[in-house]
Amino acid sequence: MPTSLLEENDGTDASAKDVLSPDCPSRIVFGRIGERWTMFVILALEPGPMRFTALKARVGVITPKVLTETLRALEGDGLVSRRAFVESPPRVEYALTPLGRSLLEPIAAMRAWAEAHVPEVLESRDRALS
Amino acid sequence: MPTSLLEENDGTDASAKDVLSPDCPSRIVFGRIGERWTMFVILALEPGPMRFTALKARVGVITPKVLTETLRALEGDGLVSRRAFVESPPRVEYALTPLGRSLLEPIAAMRAWAEAHVPEVLESRDRALS
Repeated sequence: MPTSLLEENDGTDASAKDVLSPDCPSRIVFGRIGERWTMFVILALEPGPMRFTALKARVGVITPKVLTETLRALEGDGLVSRRAFVESPPRVEYALTPLGRSLLEPIAAMRAWAEAHVPEVLESRDRALS
Repeated sequence: MPTSLLEENDGTDASAKDVLSPDCPSRIVFGRIGERWTMFVILALEPGPMRFTALKARVGVITPKVLTETLRALEGDGLVSRRAFVESPPRVEYALTPLGRSLLEPIAAMRAWAEAHVPEVLESRDRALS
C-alpha cells in the first residue's frame, strides 16, 4: 500500500484509507465518480427533478442507451432516485437524492478548475497536434 | 443554454461559462477529468516522477494499453510530462506538470467525498441487488 496516500481518517474503516488500493471500497466509489458521464448527469440534475428526455437534452451528446445505463448505475449507488407517476401517459422523473446532491460540492470544485484552466489545456492540445 | 448553470466569471470567455453546453471548451476539459482513469493516474503520480511499470503497479487494475492511452491524453492536455533519459537500458519517466499538480486539489475534494460516503453507497448497492 503506497504510504504517501495514507491519511489519518478518524472513525472510518482502515480499508477506506487508500483510494488507489484495489481492495479499498473508496476506490469503487471514486471510480464511479470518474466514469465518463457521472459528473455531467449529476450536474444536469442540479436544478431539480427531470424527465428522461429533458435530462438527455441537457446532458447533450449522450445516447439514450448510455444515459439509461448511467442512470441505473447512479440509482444503484443511491445518488439518483427514479419516480414513476401513475398517469396517462406514464411519467418518470429522475432526481438527485440528498447523497447525490452532496456530490455537487466536489463537482463544483472540478468544474471551477476546468473553467479556469481551459486556455492552458487547449493551448497544450494545439501544441501536441502541431 | 440552461441559465441556472450560468455564473459570473470575470475575465473568462463567455463560452466557458456553461460546462454542459456542447460548444463550451470547459466541457471538453471537464470531460477529460471525468474519463475513467484520469483521476487515478493523476493521484498515482502525486508523490513524484515515476516509470511506467511503477505507475502501472500503483494505479492497479489497468491494462498497459489503457495506461498508455491515458498518459498520451494527459500529456496532450499538458497535465503530465514524459521525459526520456538517454541511458542503457533507456529510462522514461512520467510526472505531473504544474498544471497537472493543480488538479490534485479538486481531486482531493472528490476523494474526501468518496471516502466519507463509502458506507452509504455500498448499502445502496446491496439494496439494489436484493
